[in-house]
Amino acid sequence: MRVVLVATSHPGNIGAAARAMKTMGFTELVLVSPLEFPHPDADARASAAVDLLKQARVVETLDEALAGCDVVAGTSARLRGLGPPELAPRDAAARLLATPGEGDVALVFGRERTGLSNEELDRCHYLIHIPANPDYASLNLAAAVQIVAYEMRLAQAQPVTAEAGEAESPAATVEEMERLYEHLEAAALASGFLDPANPKHLMRRLRRLFNRARLDQNELNIIRGLIAALQTPRHRKL
Amino acid sequence: MRVVLVATSHPGNIGAAARAMKTMGFTELVLVSPLEFPHPDADARASAAVDLLKQARVVETLDEALAGCDVVAGTSARLRGLGPPELAPRDAAARLLATPGEGDVALVFGRERTGLSNEELDRCHYLIHIPANPDYASLNLAAAVQIVAYEMRLAQAQPVTAEAGEAESPAATVEEMERLYEHLEAAALASGFLDPANPKHLMRRLRRLFNRARLDQNELNIIRGLIAALQTPRHRKL
Repeated sequence: MRVVLVATSHPGNIGAAARAMKTMGFTELVLVSPLEFPHPDADARASAAVDLLKQARVVETLDEALAGCDVVAGTSARLRGLGPPELAPRDAAARLLATPGEGDVALVFGRERTGLSNEELDRCHYLIHIPANPDYASLNLAAAVQIVAYEMRLAQAQPVTAEAGEAESPAATVEEMERLYEHLEAAALASGFLDPANPKHLMRRLRRLFNRARLDQNELNIIRGLIAALQTPRHRKL
Repeated sequence: MRVVLVATSHPGNIGAAARAMKTMGFTELVLVSPLEFPHPDADARASAAVDLLKQARVVETLDEALAGCDVVAGTSARLRGLGPPELAPRDAAARLLATPGEGDVALVFGRERTGLSNEELDRCHYLIHIPANPDYASLNLAAAVQIVAYEMRLAQAQPVTAEAGEAESPAATVEEMERLYEHLEAAALASGFLDPANPKHLMRRLRRLFNRARLDQNELNIIRGLIAALQTPRHRKL
């Protein structure tokens, strides 16, 4: 499991998040464009989890942070109409652990004030919504990491029933899925189906659909092959 | 529910604990001999939960803090052989809420470094032990409050149905999905992608993929529209 913190403002929160992770047995921390890091406040709040800060990877984009991941879950304070399926932390933990795949699970946490952007949310297969007081749902960043990591730890401790036999081929990686979306967008544009003035609406719906389906590599190849063939029909010799 | 913090050293932790409580809908905070309180660090970390700090009761002894309570649960980082029954947070929340009584439930959290003394533990009906990394089980005080308050909130609420807002449009019917598969098969054949001598393999895979995704009607229309456009590109007027 990989924890990805996006554009964190307060280095103290990075340290506290590292401590929260370590108490639940997780070690891999990736920081996307943190405002200030490394920083003495991060070290102070990490307490004996400073080793996680020392090993933390700092990258510039969310895509870099997600490289090598099979499944991505973002956290959101708001319930959202459109977007990936929203799950409570407990359900998300069960679902994430049941996902077959070789790659990591990424848990993505957004900015302290504004969370994740719509574009970032669209990278996620699931959204984790921590149930909270509707009048004050603003959990501290590290507190949110603590709850999600706690649920992941509990779910790991339980025997997981994977959906047996579902995957016959390895899961498509995040990068492969991004290439699929690029291919879909280019094909939809070239065909005139996608309005170039307003491409986002359609692409968000396609992302949501395919992220929900969780393609394996065979399926990804089928979809890409089918798009290519529809664009350029070939005449099969019988 | 009443949260009792015993002899907290860092005022920032008191503020963060107040924030954790408020996000889970709890308001009653009692401080037993805090080292420094009130304090600007407490206010800063409380964020919009400063109202809880303003209303907090400060007392000298645990007995004063527990006056009027029916049931008392203390938190402990260590598993202890002797003492009150030890429960995981989830079990404790269920047990505490099931306890009949007129008075409050008290959740007692000890000192940052040393927790609760044996004498204080003996005031408790239950001990709550948060499952953690055996090599580093030292949760921040406010993080422990967050997890216990979260479990109390979940236990109070009936389990919330997951995946709220997932469908914005009615689910596609079986008949509509059959028409999609016919459309896909015809398009795949016409493009030369599907081997007419052996169509079943590909079509089974596409069925499996789309059945897994559970399309709604919007999505179905998008997919059918995209296939049609790829087959017969139209030139959009800009």
